[in-house]
Amino acid sequence: MQKLVDGIHRFQRDLFSQDQQLFETLVEGQSPLALFITCSDSRIDPNRLTQTKPGELFIQRTAGNIVPPYGSVHGGEAATIEYAVSVLKVRDIVICGHSHCGAMAGLLDPGSIEKLPAVKAYLEHAEATRRIVEENYGHLTEPEKRLTLTVEENVLVQLESLRTHPSVAAAVGRGELKLHGWVYKFETGEVFGFDPDEAQFKPLADLAVPVDAQVRTLPPI
Amino acid sequence: MQKLVDGIHRFQRDLFSQDQQLFETLVEGQSPLALFITCSDSRIDPNRLTQTKPGELFIQRTAGNIVPPYGSVHGGEAATIEYAVSVLKVRDIVICGHSHCGAMAGLLDPGSIEKLPAVKAYLEHAEATRRIVEENYGHLTEPEKRLTLTVEENVLVQLESLRTHPSVAAAVGRGELKLHGWVYKFETGEVFGFDPDEAQFKPLADLAVPVDAQVRTLPPI
Amino acid sequence: MQKLVDGIHRFQRDLFSQDQQLFETLVEGQSPLALFITCSDSRIDPNRLTQTKPGELFIQRTAGNIVPPYGSVHGGEAATIEYAVSVLKVRDIVICGHSHCGAMAGLLDPGSIEKLPAVKAYLEHAEATRRIVEENYGHLTEPEKRLTLTVEENVLVQLESLRTHPSVAAAVGRGELKLHGWVYKFETGEVFGFDPDEAQFKPLADLAVPVDAQVRTLPPI
Amino acid sequence: MQKLVDGIHRFQRDLFSQDQQLFETLVEGQSPLALFITCSDSRIDPNRLTQTKPGELFIQRTAGNIVPPYGSVHGGEAATIEYAVSVLKVRDIVICGHSHCGAMAGLLDPGSIEKLPAVKAYLEHAEATRRIVEENYGHLTEPEKRLTLTVEENVLVQLESLRTHPSVAAAVGRGELKLHGWVYKFETGEVFGFDPDEAQFKPLADLAVPVDAQVRTLPPI
Amino acid sequence: MQKLVDGIHRFQRDLFSQDQQLFETLVEGQSPLALFITCSDSRIDPNRLTQTKPGELFIQRTAGNIVPPYGSVHGGEAATIEYAVSVLKVRDIVICGHSHCGAMAGLLDPGSIEKLPAVKAYLEHAEATRRIVEENYGHLTEPEKRLTLTVEENVLVQLESLRTHPSVAAAVGRGELKLHGWVYKFETGEVFGFDPDEAQFKPLADLAVPVDAQVRTLPPI
Amino acid sequence: MQKLVDGIHRFQRDLFSQDQQLFETLVEGQSPLALFITCSDSRIDPNRLTQTKPGELFIQRTAGNIVPPYGSVHGGEAATIEYAVSVLKVRDIVICGHSHCGAMAGLLDPGSIEKLPAVKAYLEHAEATRRIVEENYGHLTEPEKRLTLTVEENVLVQLESLRTHPSVAAAVGRGELKLHGWVYKFETGEVFGFDPDEAQFKPLADLAVPVDAQVRTLPPI
Ligand SMILES: [Zn+2]
Ligand SMILES: [Zn+2]
Ligand SMILES: [Zn+2]
Ligand SMILES: [Zn+2]
Ligand SMILES: [Zn+2]
Ligand SMILES: [Zn+2]
Repeated sequence: MQKLVDGIHRFQRDLFSQDQQLFETLVEGQSPLALFITCSDSRIDPNRLTQTKPGELFIQRTAGNIVPPYGSVHGGEAATIEYAVSVLKVRDIVICGHSHCGAMAGLLDPGSIEKLPAVKAYLEHAEATRRIVEENYGHLTEPEKRLTLTVEENVLVQLESLRTHPSVAAAVGRGELKLHGWVYKFETGEVFGFDPDEAQFKPLADLAVPVDAQVRTLPPI
Repeated sequence: MQKLVDGIHRFQRDLFSQDQQLFETLVEGQSPLALFITCSDSRIDPNRLTQTKPGELFIQRTAGNIVPPYGSVHGGEAATIEYAVSVLKVRDIVICGHSHCGAMAGLLDPGSIEKLPAVKAYLEHAEATRRIVEENYGHLTEPEKRLTLTVEENVLVQLESLRTHPSVAAAVGRGELKLHGWVYKFETGEVFGFDPDEAQFKPLADLAVPVDAQVRTLPPI
Repeated sequence: MQKLVDGIHRFQRDLFSQDQQLFETLVEGQSPLALFITCSDSRIDPNRLTQTKPGELFIQRTAGNIVPPYGSVHGGEAATIEYAVSVLKVRDIVICGHSHCGAMAGLLDPGSIEKLPAVKAYLEHAEATRRIVEENYGHLTEPEKRLTLTVEENVLVQLESLRTHPSVAAAVGRGELKLHGWVYKFETGEVFGFDPDEAQFKPLADLAVPVDAQVRTLPPI
Repeated sequence: MQKLVDGIHRFQRDLFSQDQQLFETLVEGQSPLALFITCSDSRIDPNRLTQTKPGELFIQRTAGNIVPPYGSVHGGEAATIEYAVSVLKVRDIVICGHSHCGAMAGLLDPGSIEKLPAVKAYLEHAEATRRIVEENYGHLTEPEKRLTLTVEENVLVQLESLRTHPSVAAAVGRGELKLHGWVYKFETGEVFGFDPDEAQFKPLADLAVPVDAQVRTLPPI
Repeated sequence: MQKLVDGIHRFQRDLFSQDQQLFETLVEGQSPLALFITCSDSRIDPNRLTQTKPGELFIQRTAGNIVPPYGSVHGGEAATIEYAVSVLKVRDIVICGHSHCGAMAGLLDPGSIEKLPAVKAYLEHAEATRRIVEENYGHLTEPEKRLTLTVEENVLVQLESLRTHPSVAAAVGRGELKLHGWVYKFETGEVFGFDPDEAQFKPLADLAVPVDAQVRTLPPI
Repeated sequence: MQKLVDGIHRFQRDLFSQDQQLFETLVEGQSPLALFITCSDSRIDPNRLTQTKPGELFIQRTAGNIVPPYGSVHGGEAATIEYAVSVLKVRDIVICGHSHCGAMAGLLDPGSIEKLPAVKAYLEHAEATRRIVEENYGHLTEPEKRLTLTVEENVLVQLESLRTHPSVAAAVGRGELKLHGWVYKFETGEVFGFDPDEAQFKPLADLAVPVDAQVRTLPPI
């Protein structure tokens, strides 16, 4: 604990003055570029990874970067998403999974979470991920590949889940919000993004930023 | 969005190599010092504030740094806390509120969240905060002071709520986990910690790290 | 009530013998072509509309043909869908809204359902529909057109919601299940289907049966 | 799927004109005789069974014709019932179970639904049925008889559950709504109704339509 | 508080020895005659009213003697009922309302509970009571009579709700458990019991103890 | 059952007149000294134990004297507590466990409650108790001591849970409500109270009535 307190003193002494002016401006309010949803994992530092400054990223972090479908739990995820979209008017939401995710490892090994009732209950919101991996990828038995696949499929499952949130559905429908699925491989520094046209994850550099959701024409009847 | 992608490229080109060795070690697993629970607010960068490196802070972020009592929602908060305490064996949990918190402002002004059903539902887990401010501090009418007070009381309310989580109750009971309530005033860089002996928030520098929960002796009957 | 009883006697006397052999075969079990999800509205007769025989359509009917997202309610919708997909292995699911739907009219006029707490609670699963109509179609004020639009958007919203059900997500992912959005205009006998390529509803006759969900290739990382 | 589309074309070409006038009248609204609650099973066609026309039967169908008690789930069952009773003012509600019901078979064989979490959760609303069969009919071991008994007891259990719905309780209390428990044996075309006086199911023909709920006199105190 | 402590000392000094032998026997376990469900109201003393000794009455008390339907809340009511019926094998359950009940007064006056969210949420399990009074007794405007009626109807509503509990449904079905609805008028010491045959409450002295639930014969099909 | 009815007649004939005047005063309303939360166990008679008269104790009783955290269940516990604190303005709340508690015995022996789903679900609100005993007192294997310890720890766990209720948190915060943890050993008539300073249970006679919750000073920032 003392290490955190010492770190804060170092921040106050050496670094705060650099951003003091920015922080003072931010007293008036925040206007972040995006909502960044990622895992609580200590190996991820979203601001450092994206080189963003205070005020630029609205960040939601819980174990496994899970987004329960709207209405399933009146928890922090729904509130944070609604606040980001309806109040802060963010234009992009990124769901960012990561390599070696402990939550996804737990999903693949139910025995390991048997004595963790809250984790187990939460992973029910990744039950679609689990079934996709179990039912559709039975041939993929190599453990590390299987975990990587799970992390990727989970990002896609949580993106579907995100679409059930009314604020998201409405904003996507009028072309004011885009959704992105990423996977961060921290040990190489690489980030992969999902390309819906090719239906696969590709290095972010190779990815055209996806345009989500065609505006639909008025009803014919 | 392009700004995030550019930032990632900059991180990969200029910064990743600094920590490459550390990241490779972390493939084996994480062993964070603490669970840090704070708001999704874009003006907070927990790693920069505490000058911690990858692997050191397990971070939970939702709007308003709210911790629903155990059993009230099967959401990410309970799972993240249980994972941090029971699996990662963190020794400290910090709940860190912050100045100018939009969620707490919404709590004080129900009209402003009337059309935000998910935010409204989530803030019911800060209903104790709202009642404390309304019933016990009627005389404190100056808006900014009232918001600051709300942020502080909410940290204390969420600490009580945290104690209802079984993993926390058990670890605190055997002296292996300590709980801390902080408020971060981003515009000055100050951090205040709650001192239970004096029942007030004080600058972190002046605060003896609190020893939580006396071990109780065996039953007399 | 007597009318129903009389009808049954008429069925037993005049019609049962036609299908007796079929019914006897069906004792062994059912193997329906599709799961048909529609409103409880008395003006819809799914078997007559599709000219299907006993054993061909597995049918789910509640007010408003709403499909709560997975995990939001442990109700009949989730169980019926899981049974249809995982046990009966249906290859198609149709969500079929209809013209002049009372549930959708209630969604547009909250005052009319103020004293119907169960209806009101259920329509929260169509909150995305309500917000899409309110936020994205403010200019469409003609009541009948607005109701038609709501019926259509609701079919699309419930399709998204359907995708969060694990059995559906997995079966769609491996190309064994297709999802269809229809609107039945009972007063003309017309049925419209949603064409995802053109992002609009079209007469069923003009609609190529949609192939849902491209199979994604294996993970590159 | 093509079969459904072809059926619709056949309906439009050959049958719609028969009822066109009726359908046009129904644009003004529906006024059904009864709410008919039955299983999603594809072997049941409620309109054909009762020889009813469009506009006559309001129909609720989920797996196992289960009616969760009021307040237990904010799902389609409660909303559909409330809409039928409070808005459409139906005078009768029929809960109609059926022979060879897969949901009831699942209730008797928990192992068979172990991997169907949504079905399992839903069948908890038939837990009273399960306990009645297990605790009170231990001697009845012949599988087919046991399933028939379960179907019957479940109709009675769901009738009790139906009475907890406020709209139903109030309408029954003032003598404006009657409740009926039926079992449909599709392979013979027979329908059995529960006779509360004799406490058994009897062929519908032999059954006096039950008068439910004596109006109670004013309080004596 | 001191009054309670003094009372306990008085009990220990003057009264405990009277029952000491009984209490020592009860260490082996309890075998109560009945489960007595009543309001938390301080004006009710169930043991004194029924002149029962320690070990004779298993008692459940919450505001308004409400019994949420099975499955609606995983709260103390369901657990207490299940424990009483399945473990302790009680042969009778009494739901006992009382005159001047504050919870029922709140039900009739929603404005008075607007700022009591937990009370309001709980009274939703008496929504059937509220609708019965509102819809069926509009002519009964005299406040005291209206409250008495509400107390009575609520006892009947909660009895219906009690029947949805699986342990109760099964035990009643085999004739091993009887249910009773009472109202206690504390200011006169009178107790009224519901007579199902005459569909009214009568002084307990005039009431034949009701035999609940005819055993039904085996299925005819 | 006849025994209860006979007891009531005895009460009416012999005892009612003693308190008639008191009961008549109580028609105007109750103003209890305290909310007394205890187990449904038939061996506890709170009024006799504390020698209190009608009107003095507001009593909540469910199996295991469990208080689910606020928001976890919309059940009778939350409503009863809110009513006692916000409406009746009680100044003290006692949670009183007891020796030989069957609910706590069930908590220690999960196998014994496997077929009691409602009891099992309710005991999840004592999961913190279970984990404290399992994780922190592994060395305490003597069954009776282990049960006594569980009863005591559960009183403390439920006290923490009680603090999450907004009405309680606010009233404690302004010094108008005190919380007390007791254990009643019925076979000896002893009552033990928790002494927070010494962190152990002590005979009530030796216990200074605890002053709960220091009033905190205004925020420094
Ligand atoms: Zn992770
Ligand atoms: Zn904030
Ligand atoms: Zn409809
Ligand atoms: Zn069936
Ligand atoms: Zn009362
Ligand atoms: Zn007990």
